[in-house]
This record gives sequence, C-alpha cells and structure tokens, in this order.
Amino acid sequence: MGKTMKFSRYAKRFDSGSGTVQLMEDLGAARRTRGPVYMLGGGNPAHIPEVQSIFQREMLRIASDSAAFGRMVGDYDVPQGNVEFTTALASLLNRKFGWPLGPENIAITNGSQSSFGLIFNSLAGEFDDGRFRRVLLPITPEYIGYSDVGIYDKPLFEGHRPTIAKLPGGFFKYHIDLDSLTIDDRYGAVCVSRPTNPTGNVVTDAELQELARRCREADVPLVIDGAYGLPFPGIIFTEAQPLWEPNIILCLSLSKLGLPGVRAGIIVARPEFIRLVRNANAINSLAPGRVGPELVAALLEDDSLLDLCNEIIRPYYKRKMEHVVDCVRSIMGDLPVWIHQPEGALFVWLWFENLPITSEQLYQKLKDRGVFILAGHHFYPGLDEDWPHKYQCIRVNYATDIAVVEQGLKIIADTVRESYRAT
Amino acid sequence: MGKTMKFSRYAKRFDSGSGTVQLMEDLGAARRTRGPVYMLGGGNPAHIPEVQSIFQREMLRIASDSAAFGRMVGDYDVPQGNVEFTTALASLLNRKFGWPLGPENIAITNGSQSSFGLIFNSLAGEFDDGRFRRVLLPITPEYIGYSDVGIYDKPLFEGHRPTIAKLPGGFFKYHIDLDSLTIDDRYGAVCVSRPTNPTGNVVTDAELQELARRCREADVPLVIDGAYGLPFPGIIFTEAQPLWEPNIILCLSLSKLGLPGVRAGIIVARPEFIRLVRNANAINSLAPGRVGPELVAALLEDDSLLDLCNEIIRPYYKRKMEHVVDCVRSIMGDLPVWIHQPEGALFVWLWFENLPITSEQLYQKLKDRGVFILAGHHFYPGLDEDWPHKYQCIRVNYATDIAVVEQGLKIIADTVRESYRAT
Repeated sequence: MGKTMKFSRYAKRFDSGSGTVQLMEDLGAARRTRGPVYMLGGGNPAHIPEVQSIFQREMLRIASDSAAFGRMVGDYDVPQGNVEFTTALASLLNRKFGWPLGPENIAITNGSQSSFGLIFNSLAGEFDDGRFRRVLLPITPEYIGYSDVGIYDKPLFEGHRPTIAKLPGGFFKYHIDLDSLTIDDRYGAVCVSRPTNPTGNVVTDAELQELARRCREADVPLVIDGAYGLPFPGIIFTEAQPLWEPNIILCLSLSKLGLPGVRAGIIVARPEFIRLVRNANAINSLAPGRVGPELVAALLEDDSLLDLCNEIIRPYYKRKMEHVVDCVRSIMGDLPVWIHQPEGALFVWLWFENLPITSEQLYQKLKDRGVFILAGHHFYPGLDEDWPHKYQCIRVNYATDIAVVEQGLKIIADTVRESYRAT
Repeated sequence: MGKTMKFSRYAKRFDSGSGTVQLMEDLGAARRTRGPVYMLGGGNPAHIPEVQSIFQREMLRIASDSAAFGRMVGDYDVPQGNVEFTTALASLLNRKFGWPLGPENIAITNGSQSSFGLIFNSLAGEFDDGRFRRVLLPITPEYIGYSDVGIYDKPLFEGHRPTIAKLPGGFFKYHIDLDSLTIDDRYGAVCVSRPTNPTGNVVTDAELQELARRCREADVPLVIDGAYGLPFPGIIFTEAQPLWEPNIILCLSLSKLGLPGVRAGIIVARPEFIRLVRNANAINSLAPGRVGPELVAALLEDDSLLDLCNEIIRPYYKRKMEHVVDCVRSIMGDLPVWIHQPEGALFVWLWFENLPITSEQLYQKLKDRGVFILAGHHFYPGLDEDWPHKYQCIRVNYATDIAVVEQGLKIIADTVRESYRAT
C-alpha cells in the first residue's frame, strides 16, 4: 500500500491508545468475539419497549407524511439547530423551572461528545493574554470522554480528588472536597457531570450551589453535563434540583432517552456562547443532524417526553439498579467490595478495596472471559497523583438484560476472587 | 447577563464573519424575511419525489420493525461507522470499478464537512519536523467550506489559478494550469472537488490522472471530494470515470442523494487512514450517526441506489440544468454573461465580465430583494492574488422549483443590468 503516511501534529491526538477509542471499539466487540459476550462496558442505554414504541410511533407518523419526512431528512437544518426543537425546549425549561430562556439560549450539536470538545477548547487552553487555562474537574472520578478532547500537548484538565464517605450497608459516596478547592482565574471552566459518569454519584444541591457561587464570583463558567440527568432523561434517584444561570453551560443529550444512534447533543447557555456553537457547527459540519430533534420536538411541546422520563425511564433504571445491587450483595458477599451509592445514570461503580491487581489487569482478564466493563483508572482526567484507589474500581453498565448482568457479575466475582487469593 | 465571556485562541476561529456561517445562516433566512424569498444559495439538494418515496419506504419498513428500528436509533454505532454500510459499499466499489477494497477502507463521518476538517488538519498544518505544510487546491474556484477548517493562524490552503477557455455559445470552462503546477513535499495534501462546487466543472479524466500521477510521485495524498459525484449521487453530465488508488482519499456523502438532514459523510482510503478516522470519531463524537447508513445500506446491497442515481437523480438535475441555461440565455441575453460549462453538481456559475460592482455588493443587493445566491469571491481559498475575475462571478443553486429559479434569475438580471448602466 505504499509508504507510511505522514501525519501532522494535530493527528497525533488520534492514536489508538485513547480510553475513549477502547470504550467505543469494545461496543462493537460482540460481533468479533467467539463465545458468549457480557457487554457491561460502554454507555449504551437500554432498549425500553414502552419508550421505543413511542419513538417508533413518531417516526412512522413522520415517515408517512412526505412534507414532514422531507423536512427531517431532505433539508439542512440551520447551524444553531432545529428551530422547532430549540423553541419547544426553551419553553419547557421556562415552564418547569422558571429559567428565563428563549431559543437564542439553545443549540444542537452532533452529540454531547462534540459539545464537550467545543466547550472545553473554547473556554480553556491558550489565550491571547499568553496564559494556558485548564478545565477544573472538582470531583473525580469523572467522565472518560473528557480526557482526550484537548487539542494541546499540555493537559487540558485538572482533576480534584474527592473525599470518600463510607456508608452503612457497604455503600460509599464521593463528595467534593470543598475545603481544598480554589476556583479562580487559573481555570477557563469548571465541569461536573450530574449524575456522574462513571460513579452514579449525584453531586448534592448544596455542593452544586456552592460550586456555582464560587464560579460566579471567579467569573469562570460552570459546565454541567446532564447527559443522564435533568430535565431528561431524568435518570436520577435522589431529590436533586436542576440548575441554570447565565454563568452555567448545561449540556443535555437525546442519547440516554434511547436515541444514541441519532447523535444529538444540546447546549443551554447564554446567547453569546450559543452564537459560538452556531458558528462552530457551520464550520465543522454545516449543520447538526436533524433526525433526532424532529423526532422528539412534538414530545417536548406537550410534555409527554417528561412524563415518559418520570413514569417509564426513571422507574425502569431504578428497578435495574436495585437488582444489580442485590446481585452484587449475593454474588460478591465474600469480597471486600464497596458500591458507590447508586444515585443515578446506568452504572454501578464497584470499589474492590486493596485489589491486588490493577483495574486495567482486571479489565484484560475479564475481556478474555467475554465480560466487557470499563477499568476505573480511565476516569481521572487530570488527576496525576498516585492514589491506589484509582486502580481499584470498575464501571459496570446495568442497562442490558438482567441475565447478562447477573452472569457478568458472577464472572467478575470469580476473577476478582482469584486475584485476592493469588496474594 | 454578566460580563463578556473569555474565549480561547481556538474559539477565535468561530467568529461570525465566515463564509460558511453566512451560507448556512442564509438557508434559514426564508423564515425570517418578509416578502417572497428566492433561495438560490446554499447547497440544499432537491426533494425529488421518486427518490424521497424510496427513502420513505425504507424508513417505514425499518420503523415498523422493532429490532431494526432499535438498531438504527437505539445503539451507538462502532466509531468507524456502520458495518453493514461499509461492507456493502466496499463490495459495490469492487463490483463496479474493480477497486480492491474491504470494509477496512471505509469510514463514516457526520457529514463531508466533518471529513474535510479531519483530513486537512491531519495531513497538513504543523509537523514534528517543524514544517508547516499546506493543502494545495490545484484549481480554484473551489468549495467555500474548505476555507475555515484550518485550526492554525496561518492559512492552510494554497489555491491555484485556473486557465479559462471561452467556448462557443457563451460558455467557458476552467482548466487546471498544469504547466505552472508543481506538487512536492511543501504540500501535505492536494484536493479537488469533482464535480467542482461551485462551478459545476468536472475535472477531466486526463487532468485527474495527471494530478494522481504527480501526487503519487511526490508522495502527497490526493483528496477527491465526490460529494456530488461518483459513484453516488452521480450528478455528472459528462463521461467521467471515478478514480481510487492507495494514495487517494475519496470523500462521499449521502447529502446530495436527498439526505442532508442525516449528516453522513463517507471516507474511502487506505486502512492506515481509516483507523485515524475511527479514532477521531470516537474522540470527537463517540460514533458517527447511524440513521443515514442504516437507511441506505440495503439499497447499496442490491444496486438499487445506483439505479436511482442513473435513472432518476442524474436525469432530474440534467433537465433542471438545461432549463436554467435556457433561462439565463433568454433572461440575460443582453448582458455580458458567461456560463461555466455545466458538467455536474446542482449549480450554475455565472461570470459577469467586467461587472462594475463586486460579487459581495451584488450579493447584498440581491439579498435586499429576497434573492439568495453565493458571491463568487468566497470560493478562492488560498488564492490571495488580486484577480478581478474573483469578484465577477456568482453561484446559483438550481435544485429548487423552476418558477423560483426563473423569477430569481430575472431579479439577478435586473440588478446586474442596473449596475452596468450605472457606470
């Protein structure tokens, strides 16, 4: 095939060692692996029949109507994103939470991952004043997908170590270590996912308010990644309130509603930032995808999407979460395992205290046995300190079939048990 | 809303002055403008009823099948892009053209515009050897969308001035000025769109072969942007042959088939480059959209997509093209207008020789009268020389209703006529 290609410095970012690449490649591994596969990695949401049937109904309605279908697939959307969708969402957020938003506060992207790349590189990195500002992650573990989006040789993130509260019943919870956290002009942005991917932690209302206050005072934007959160898909099992103010950039997604194939992310921010997103959309991809927004817009207008979240999606994942916790207790009762308090999202985060092998070694052993999980050490963007806890945790996606989760947990238990015994 | 936000140097790229932003914003202008609007700007393809009805049929089939619909919208695709699609396309390209390709040669992106950003920045720009390599555009006018994708302060493109052949009947054709073209290690890549957006030019087979030869010898990859071309949508009215070899990166798209809303671009290249695209997809957006590929895959397998291109799409645009040429002749017969030989795509490129106002001034005057076109001067990425021809041309999209095109041309004729009279 000729000589090796010459790639620019920019292209070096896209080498195969990235955790995000591994994560997404694993999603397709089932088809390439012999023997049974237990797919507990990745972030694929469940196929919830009641939810999917509503999207099917909407798609059938649109595909039966030449004009509506022509709009959905046959016309470029405006670069800010579908006007019906942004208008309906602004109205919903106003109606439900009293946020003073119009369509000028909302833009659509090709998925949250695209949103993050744009947001972090636009608010942090190199500035005209010669400074290099980072994105502060006030609580790690934090989402693996952030790690690789920085376009610079220097790290774009600074991760902050949490405090750990051990709770009754073998649970634990990370908290933001507010005492040691200083937010100032060194940072271009601060970001939390809520619920947290990977841990299922929900940063408390008090923690979030305090973060927002410090960010406001330091004039540093606060990014809230609500991909699993509020107002939709609403996979939160605690009494958390959503928050927006002009200093906050809220990221939402259609993926965890059950629509990852349409690639639709949503950014809620002040108009100045939305114009930047619009321009970036035009330059990077002419316009964002139109299928997801057209599919969902009508469900925003009559509040049926929120009903779906409250009545079907949240209870569905809550049952799954309770079941996976029961499974861990019964299958791993003999192991020194702590479960992060499962407050949201579709993962359990298991901490094997003093695990004798690293989470990467555990990942490899499990992969050899057909069980795909995510090794915990990937989830500490910008936390370089050598903290053993980083290598003792795994993320398990429980969105798939109960039988698969159960069998996968048994294999995980066996593998972990062997590793403790070997020492 | 608080203080002005601080944006990084990266974000400066996304200011509102970009031609791409203007182009895409104009597409949404109809809804914001009073009075009649003649939308002859942008690159929106026609809604061809026979074509759309086939996509509707496919969508209805998939949306009626829970498993198929669940795959399309409910699962992340692998980051390289839909396996059914890449397998079917590789097989088609092999079958039709004898190209030795497998699915490892094909990746999917969120539209051609995303492909270009990745390709140009990965093959050109800053290198570890300290050099800054540009992308050579051997023939301008060339696609406006390339202009803004470079991530550097320095220009990423070097445009080459064409020769102009005046032809009988008021036509003209640009040719690559091969005599003055040197391809060497100064360039990271060479790129041509074929058919050319904006001119409807089709670089001849001989020109393309010569470009490919020089690129191969200089070990510089040749990018062929076939968004309007071969094998689909096949909007080419001359006898052009498609070309691929390991040194060529061929970019295709589903947009001009009538599916711009799904945002699906396709890259055909050697596996080494496809792996880079896969990794970039994972890092930049987890996975590309799945709706377009799932919608079209079955039509690739049984060749019905190519039949559609040959029997419906090409003849449809050919009739439109012949009509718009007739209109220009009858409406502008008194003006010194040259039509670029319309060999493909869905535009006519009109050259008003010695136009007394600039194409930007003409664009503004036309916009005030409700006619949206694209001013020609945007289409010279990296051609800085002060060549009056750059300001004497406009691009007119003729994909829309005949009556709209006709009325738009009348207003263009009136406006141009006034400008000649005023001098």
